[in-house]
Amino acid sequence: MNLPLVISLLSKLLVLEAGLMLPALITALIHREPSWAALLITMGIVLLAGLPLMLLVKPASKDVHAKEGLAVVSLSWVLLSLAGALPFILSGMIPDFINALFETVSGFTTTGASILSRVEHLPRGLLLWRSFTHWVGGMGVLILTLAVMPKLSGRSAMLARAESPGPTFSKVVPRMRDTARLMYAVYTVLSLLQLVLLMLAGLPFFDALIHTLGTAGTGGFSSRNQSVGAYNNPLAEGIITLFMLLFGMNFVVYFKLLRGEGRAAFHSEEVRVYWILAALSMLTVTLTTLPRYGQFATAFRYASFQVASIMSTTGYATTDYVLWPQFTHILLLLLMVVGACAGSTAGGMKVSRVVMLSKASAREIGQAAAPRKVRLLKMDKKPVNEDTLRSVLVFFLLYMGILFLGTLIASTDGHDFATSFSAVVSCLSNIGPGLNLVGPSGNFDIFSPHVKVLLTFLMLAGRLEFIPLLVMFHREMWAKGH
Amino acid sequence: MNLPLVISLLSKLLVLEAGLMLPALITALIHREPSWAALLITMGIVLLAGLPLMLLVKPASKDVHAKEGLAVVSLSWVLLSLAGALPFILSGMIPDFINALFETVSGFTTTGASILSRVEHLPRGLLLWRSFTHWVGGMGVLILTLAVMPKLSGRSAMLARAESPGPTFSKVVPRMRDTARLMYAVYTVLSLLQLVLLMLAGLPFFDALIHTLGTAGTGGFSSRNQSVGAYNNPLAEGIITLFMLLFGMNFVVYFKLLRGEGRAAFHSEEVRVYWILAALSMLTVTLTTLPRYGQFATAFRYASFQVASIMSTTGYATTDYVLWPQFTHILLLLLMVVGACAGSTAGGMKVSRVVMLSKASAREIGQAAAPRKVRLLKMDKKPVNEDTLRSVLVFFLLYMGILFLGTLIASTDGHDFATSFSAVVSCLSNIGPGLNLVGPSGNFDIFSPHVKVLLTFLMLAGRLEFIPLLVMFHREMWAKGH
Repeated sequence: MNLPLVISLLSKLLVLEAGLMLPALITALIHREPSWAALLITMGIVLLAGLPLMLLVKPASKDVHAKEGLAVVSLSWVLLSLAGALPFILSGMIPDFINALFETVSGFTTTGASILSRVEHLPRGLLLWRSFTHWVGGMGVLILTLAVMPKLSGRSAMLARAESPGPTFSKVVPRMRDTARLMYAVYTVLSLLQLVLLMLAGLPFFDALIHTLGTAGTGGFSSRNQSVGAYNNPLAEGIITLFMLLFGMNFVVYFKLLRGEGRAAFHSEEVRVYWILAALSMLTVTLTTLPRYGQFATAFRYASFQVASIMSTTGYATTDYVLWPQFTHILLLLLMVVGACAGSTAGGMKVSRVVMLSKASAREIGQAAAPRKVRLLKMDKKPVNEDTLRSVLVFFLLYMGILFLGTLIASTDGHDFATSFSAVVSCLSNIGPGLNLVGPSGNFDIFSPHVKVLLTFLMLAGRLEFIPLLVMFHREMWAKGH
Repeated sequence: MNLPLVISLLSKLLVLEAGLMLPALITALIHREPSWAALLITMGIVLLAGLPLMLLVKPASKDVHAKEGLAVVSLSWVLLSLAGALPFILSGMIPDFINALFETVSGFTTTGASILSRVEHLPRGLLLWRSFTHWVGGMGVLILTLAVMPKLSGRSAMLARAESPGPTFSKVVPRMRDTARLMYAVYTVLSLLQLVLLMLAGLPFFDALIHTLGTAGTGGFSSRNQSVGAYNNPLAEGIITLFMLLFGMNFVVYFKLLRGEGRAAFHSEEVRVYWILAALSMLTVTLTTLPRYGQFATAFRYASFQVASIMSTTGYATTDYVLWPQFTHILLLLLMVVGACAGSTAGGMKVSRVVMLSKASAREIGQAAAPRKVRLLKMDKKPVNEDTLRSVLVFFLLYMGILFLGTLIASTDGHDFATSFSAVVSCLSNIGPGLNLVGPSGNFDIFSPHVKVLLTFLMLAGRLEFIPLLVMFHREMWAKGH
């Protein structure tokens, strides 16, 4: 393990985080909120820890091997969350350490699960910081570091690969740093567009900003206890529905659109399945909730928002879907597991993995019918590497294994099965709300500290897609050699 | 597809089934129960359908290829269940066709889930038939056919392989027919031993027989509504606990013991993990239910019985574990998914698969830490074929995929999540009871006909480990050629 390199990268990240807190500090100062001090002290601590290390530690080699890459990815997310929790603790708004860490990890991982029962009590500076973590965590903190920091090394793609969600990672331009910058450019433009549209729909600037940050990162933190439902604004709901789905789409689509490859952009199987799944689920939930709402238009309004919110793993709500029929609960739970597209800001297993897994099942069944036939598994008309397939199968295995064991541990709190199970799914897939007690009207403060620690770990594990975090507990990670 | 061969095999099976109904008919006649007529008529129908086909259809080739093997396995289980349901319908005891089919499939697949709310109302002849299906289905109907019918062909191992549970299949002696006979011999001796012990423990002959048949097949049908709990006989409970675990163990162990290879018998990783898992789960459940029962001995009595019953996928109960703490629910649910050993009469994913899956996860994580190291996945110190591993991964995928989609369909009945989910797990793993409304005090009559049909299909799918049943819906199964 090239420790100086790891320390050097982590220190850069800390310095960057201090910078990221600036908008929140300015907001707190403008509104004369006492929490400005907590933000400033945190920035000071983070800079004091990061700057000297950044300036003093000069790694002899800048090669990022697998081990260094994994260590940097895991440790950076843990470090970032620990520092990011300080403003909540120091301001006294979330005095409990475990609660503050839960809320911050929920932010960076774009989960949006909250332990706060009265969100409106949070001052604006902290509300902005809380939502800003969504925006940063959505696209990835290391990709951001690659984009803004002096260039690292030729192997830095490994960092982006480990942090970026999905079974494969495509550099859209040859140099990693340019890819990172392009990604953040598209991300920023889309976010600004949503911000303007939400303001045109009648939302005040601050509320529009908070919900744009939450949508872009597919996070789901709101400035209101009732989430988006608080505004009762069908136009704003429609805009958010559209942008949740847009931010859940593979960003490569936008690059292709920018290059004028309009038709090629939608040739991706994953993207097609994503939109078809969204449309079918919206229709199904609309029909299932029709008896409740009476009118098709009303049912569609709530159903389309909720499906887009869950599929994109955002987690906003305009109504308490726990009151809907059981069938919609399970449908939403399945969509939680699936999630949205690889290469987006969304969580979950990702549509591309689910497509691959379905094809693998069909192939195995076909193999039984005609054992002598050679079958290639194809995605987008290209054969899938058997190693990729195996790692997708193991990803599924890890997801389910962790889901069941996590539910077992969560059940020690004695809540009903749907609550425990959906809380774990929600954290693993970085959604936010779950079912029953952790539905849109509930919050995660019902859990005891040890379950909160577990769920915090699961949010990180889900965001980093397991391997980078789990490998930290592997003996060989700390052995010598590569 | 060699259709004459398929028809010839299926007709032999029908003739065999008529013979299997003989003990039930005799019992009905002895006790002068009017249901003797229903049994006799069924035997007549089955013989009329089977005998002419068996005598007239002479397949030109006796080679069993993959397609024929799979078709015979699936169709035989469906046919056997359809015929087996007739006595319940004709006697008027379960007049509804879907209910009677559910109960019979539940019998043959050794699930033990019942739609009957008052088991005691069933006459003895039908009770015996119902429990006898467990005994036959546990070891396998095709293995029985191989054992008692004139010899088939050199390739008949394929039939046994498709029907026998587990990722691999070991012939203990070179000839398949001898293997089948040996298996049934061990099975019969163990069953007789349990019967005698239960009678010594004070159970009447008929009750001892019913519970022996249910234990041996790891089925779980009882002659009492309160299951084994009705006797309140700790000695009988202990005997059943032991035998449930013994019938859940890989039968290869018994062959090795018979050959005097005592130590080798317990060298199997699967068997060791099975007993360790059982012991640890018993201890955990005992400690968790200790506050409820006060005394360690009492808690252990109920906990050990329930853990053995669930792990072996039998499904007997001595108490309503739905009243236990939530944590034990999830633990039992996990044990339901895992099941017992391959090559036993039990259901579930099988311990050997779970061990392989754990090793595959660990390997993938290790691979991330040190990518250049070559890692072989070993079971019992022998490397596991990558094809076997892939099929185990796909098995896991199919299990989970079917579990979630099945729960979605089952939820249309509007029952709570734990009820729908555990009902599907219970049927897929061939357990019997589930949680909440389908716990030991409930029954499966709460579901609507379409969900009962689904659950019936899932019991068959689980018993045959998916592929043989799913492949029947594959286009290539019905295409020409092999």
